[in-house]
Amino acid sequence: MKLLEDRILKDGHIGADNVLKVDSFLNHQIDVNFVCELGKEFYRLFKDENITKILTIEASGIGIACLAAQYFNVPVVFAKKTKTINIYSDTYNATVHSYTHKKDYDIVVSKEFLNKEDNVLIIDDFLAKGSALTALLMLIEKAGAKTAGAGIVIEKAYQGGGNLVRDMGIRVESLAKIKSISKKDGIVFCKQ
Amino acid sequence: MKLLEDRILKDGHIGADNVLKVDSFLNHQIDVNFVCELGKEFYRLFKDENITKILTIEASGIGIACLAAQYFNVPVVFAKKTKTINIYSDTYNATVHSYTHKKDYDIVVSKEFLNKEDNVLIIDDFLAKGSALTALLMLIEKAGAKTAGAGIVIEKAYQGGGNLVRDMGIRVESLAKIKSISKKDGIVFCKQ
Repeated sequence: MKLLEDRILKDGHIGADNVLKVDSFLNHQIDVNFVCELGKEFYRLFKDENITKILTIEASGIGIACLAAQYFNVPVVFAKKTKTINIYSDTYNATVHSYTHKKDYDIVVSKEFLNKEDNVLIIDDFLAKGSALTALLMLIEKAGAKTAGAGIVIEKAYQGGGNLVRDMGIRVESLAKIKSISKKDGIVFCKQ
Repeated sequence: MKLLEDRILKDGHIGADNVLKVDSFLNHQIDVNFVCELGKEFYRLFKDENITKILTIEASGIGIACLAAQYFNVPVVFAKKTKTINIYSDTYNATVHSYTHKKDYDIVVSKEFLNKEDNVLIIDDFLAKGSALTALLMLIEKAGAKTAGAGIVIEKAYQGGGNLVRDMGIRVESLAKIKSISKKDGIVFCKQ
């Protein structure tokens, strides 16, 4: 999506360890009008899939999921991160390995809000090695629901998570796919 | 706001320790169309205030803030919770005491995203004793920005935080104000 690639080139920063920072418009400050355009694009891509629910993960997925959900006219459910006791007595759980923080954490969704009638679109801001995404897929599977696909804002294609999940037969649509990132060569996108 | 009071009576649950649970439409599953109506009401209340930015706190404030921000046509900034090192080298910090979890945590906002030209509307889902709200006010003050007010979805008036903040001269508008809550008498709203 050219609008997004242009914005990443304009306002993205390459931080320590070649981490892409898009804090100024996507995941600390949120340019709501801009994110609505991303939401419309997700709708264009998945509008024929009879989505019943959008699933995301706290915290930075929530804003994007809510703004996108308006076009689908469906509710959002966000998986909660937990390191301690379950906050709900009746939840589906899955484990995410955070490569950034080098530790595992659990995510939970109340059983009330995902069920076998659901056809779920996952929406998230980033896809790197796919640990969060595969955990979300696990929650949907535990609920007996169907996964319609995953809509990702920025896929770091060089980290392999996108193809890992595509090889599982899941439709993954990323609005920007980054081929490589370095201070020397900057941000290089995959050819669309 | 009658729409919200009716929804709380219909779908809210009184959990252990008389805690109000509105997980089915506000802060785990989000009824996006419904929350848009809350956003329009915040806009009606604050539209003449020349808001430049909406500030909230992760995680459950983000969806509400983003959906409301569309009507104001301004960006959202969400304060991040942190217990460890600062994720940004250049942040404003404040401490929140969580009465629910009986511990303190810090919230941070990057200095880039709040500055003295800003006229900030705070939006959050709940207001109880006011600990999160006063910490957000502190971040705004540290940035040298102006606080236009706070838009709260549900104020637990019996916990006193709303009046504490109003006594500081801050305009606080709560869409539902709960006078008392108990399994015996149910949910009783303040007279509007």
